[in-house]
Amino acid sequence: MPKIRLEPVRGMRDIIPEESTEILWLERKFAEVAELYGYEPVIAPTVELFSLFEVKSGPEIRRSMYVFQDKAGRTVCLRPELTASMARIYLRRLQTLPKPVKIFYVGSAFRYEEPQRGRYREFIQAGVEYLGEEGVAADIELLLLIRDYLREIRFVDYSIKLGHMGLFRDLFSMWGIPEDVQDEIIHYIDKKELERATTLLSEYPKAKPEVINELSKCKGSDPQKLTSCAESAGLPEEVMKHVELLAHVTKVTQALGIPEVYADLGFARGLAYYTGLIFEIVPKKALSLSVGGGGRYDTLVSLYGGPATPATGFALGIDRIHLTLKESGWSLPERKIKVMLVSLESDIYGYVDRVATALRSAGVVVNVFPRPKLSSALRVASEKGYDYAVIIGRKEVEGGYVTLKDLRERKQKIVTVEELRKEVVKAE
Amino acid sequence: MPKIRLEPVRGMRDIIPEESTEILWLERKFAEVAELYGYEPVIAPTVELFSLFEVKSGPEIRRSMYVFQDKAGRTVCLRPELTASMARIYLRRLQTLPKPVKIFYVGSAFRYEEPQRGRYREFIQAGVEYLGEEGVAADIELLLLIRDYLREIRFVDYSIKLGHMGLFRDLFSMWGIPEDVQDEIIHYIDKKELERATTLLSEYPKAKPEVINELSKCKGSDPQKLTSCAESAGLPEEVMKHVELLAHVTKVTQALGIPEVYADLGFARGLAYYTGLIFEIVPKKALSLSVGGGGRYDTLVSLYGGPATPATGFALGIDRIHLTLKESGWSLPERKIKVMLVSLESDIYGYVDRVATALRSAGVVVNVFPRPKLSSALRVASEKGYDYAVIIGRKEVEGGYVTLKDLRERKQKIVTVEELRKEVVKAE
Repeated sequence: MPKIRLEPVRGMRDIIPEESTEILWLERKFAEVAELYGYEPVIAPTVELFSLFEVKSGPEIRRSMYVFQDKAGRTVCLRPELTASMARIYLRRLQTLPKPVKIFYVGSAFRYEEPQRGRYREFIQAGVEYLGEEGVAADIELLLLIRDYLREIRFVDYSIKLGHMGLFRDLFSMWGIPEDVQDEIIHYIDKKELERATTLLSEYPKAKPEVINELSKCKGSDPQKLTSCAESAGLPEEVMKHVELLAHVTKVTQALGIPEVYADLGFARGLAYYTGLIFEIVPKKALSLSVGGGGRYDTLVSLYGGPATPATGFALGIDRIHLTLKESGWSLPERKIKVMLVSLESDIYGYVDRVATALRSAGVVVNVFPRPKLSSALRVASEKGYDYAVIIGRKEVEGGYVTLKDLRERKQKIVTVEELRKEVVKAE
Repeated sequence: MPKIRLEPVRGMRDIIPEESTEILWLERKFAEVAELYGYEPVIAPTVELFSLFEVKSGPEIRRSMYVFQDKAGRTVCLRPELTASMARIYLRRLQTLPKPVKIFYVGSAFRYEEPQRGRYREFIQAGVEYLGEEGVAADIELLLLIRDYLREIRFVDYSIKLGHMGLFRDLFSMWGIPEDVQDEIIHYIDKKELERATTLLSEYPKAKPEVINELSKCKGSDPQKLTSCAESAGLPEEVMKHVELLAHVTKVTQALGIPEVYADLGFARGLAYYTGLIFEIVPKKALSLSVGGGGRYDTLVSLYGGPATPATGFALGIDRIHLTLKESGWSLPERKIKVMLVSLESDIYGYVDRVATALRSAGVVVNVFPRPKLSSALRVASEKGYDYAVIIGRKEVEGGYVTLKDLRERKQKIVTVEELRKEVVKAE
């Protein structure tokens, strides 16, 4: 009868091996790829002032935040995403660095939402921010980084959906719609609640809700067709440049080996700080649950009180990537050789340490069994799928060798400490 | 004039390059060493029920916790340390695995304490738990793992201080002191407030506070001297076995290359769940701020409602390790070659991508400058301390080569794409 509740708090998870090993590997690979692209890490606090997110995160995120008072009465929160912190830290510490400033992060974010498949109240985000560059080369680089990361972790069969927030913002401004109402309409478009969006729009005399309806039908990767679809939808000339940009990015990235890229003129993202090109990564097999996305947020830094700073970035959901991979039968592409070391005497620490150190320095996992019990050690080793057992008794210490047992081929032999390392490593 | 507060919440930190790069490296190395010892990762939730920590964390930690109600009215907290979660997760998911169960973690913990040098309200802990083994070999393994990790990250000049909670618990029980009062006395001993401890003790007629006073003078690494000091202090025969264990561990670990190990019979740790051997890692140079510690907690799993499960573990403070290293002039022992790639044309994405990919696959950082501006790119590259610039224009694309500029030696030459990789990597 447990005296404490063993379950984690609702919506939270206990991640145990093998899942934890896989998730850490996915995180580490992200950091590696981001570093190879010249991004540098930033570690932001988990707890931020709530006011940081009041500015531009959008109504949905604000409602689902973990907000509380700390002991000094500050209204703080657990970060619901990391871009706001990155923009804050950029302003505080990084804005005097040579531009562009390229940073990445891997960390937990928190949203109090109804838990469901692939949605947890604490989830792991891996992302980058590219600050101080307005050119489309920055946006394209983000897509290449995603391509390389997904290739590295063997995540295949995904599409990249492109959109442009400028389409909506420019139209809405031309129609005289105040910014907070724009945010709300965009929230509905993001949630695929087009009717609510057009109802809200129709309250404004200059608005043409039918344009939004028609735009939502313009999708694809053919530049000509996109342009003519947008024209038929009644998109004004002044706004067509965004469609042209989408067509350009689609063409360039497809030529660079991203399996499937398409533009969707009715696609919006809920975070209210986006201003330009936006995108989402959608796996083809699973229930089209997006595994990440991002886009331009050229005004966030100035909204925070800083100088005009064009910026773009993205975040990937490591949990969802992991879930999608597992559903397609994925397993960890790399694996270390594992050795169970059994000492038959309890006073030969020095010899055991020498053998274990020699193997570990060659990248071999050496688990030293804590008691001089050969049969228990061998049972544990085989239950855990270890490759070898190394057995050391008085005889071995005196002779300067070890007994090496191949647990898969069920053979054993005697090797010197010098030979052991080569023997274990070469066998792979 | 900033519109938001740019400072992080009091006691929290923004960790930026180079510090962030160093800290991530320290974390990754810990995971690597723990894996080589056969530990597997567990990822615990950041938010736990407060009740998990009410059981045995000790008065000090309870007082300094971030506690709040979530939207469903649960009393939750930000974890103040990770061992309680690990014990919970062991009971829930791992207790049927073959013993011993060896797990590790790296993650944030939170304590609302007065910020000071090396003490933050969010801090990074890296630790292991060794569950299901009562023998001293498990405790010794922890010290060897610490030795290897500190060696790997080049942290030298530290001592390991050993103590034994059994000394206090056995004495206090013999003296008829209730467990919650024992916890409080131990808290004072941990805080070096011996007078308050002995005052509390003197309320119990059977207690001999002078024994605690005398024990606090018994320190050192000579087994004979320790034993005789404990005897003079008036330690009863039944409790001497703990001193003998300390002497044994001191001797064994010193022979295994741990620079300085000593026992301190007056040493206690504040976390109330410790039951046996305890230890702390104390750097010699800095203000003897402990960078980590741990010990046996043989009753925690059963206090949580599980079967009797001997266990030991430790946690290192990654921030304090980093601080201590930096104060001794440490810098990152590993560094990647860094290349700034400048494309002089905006329509040669394919060629640029091929060159960048070739270098990145050899582990070279390639930062592609986002605009066709050579002088800006070279300025940024040299400000950021890059090793090379690779310049690609129309001429290079047509000829199938690149211009490689060595930024340290200020020389440049033309190399084919095939030669480039060898040229850049071999130069190290």
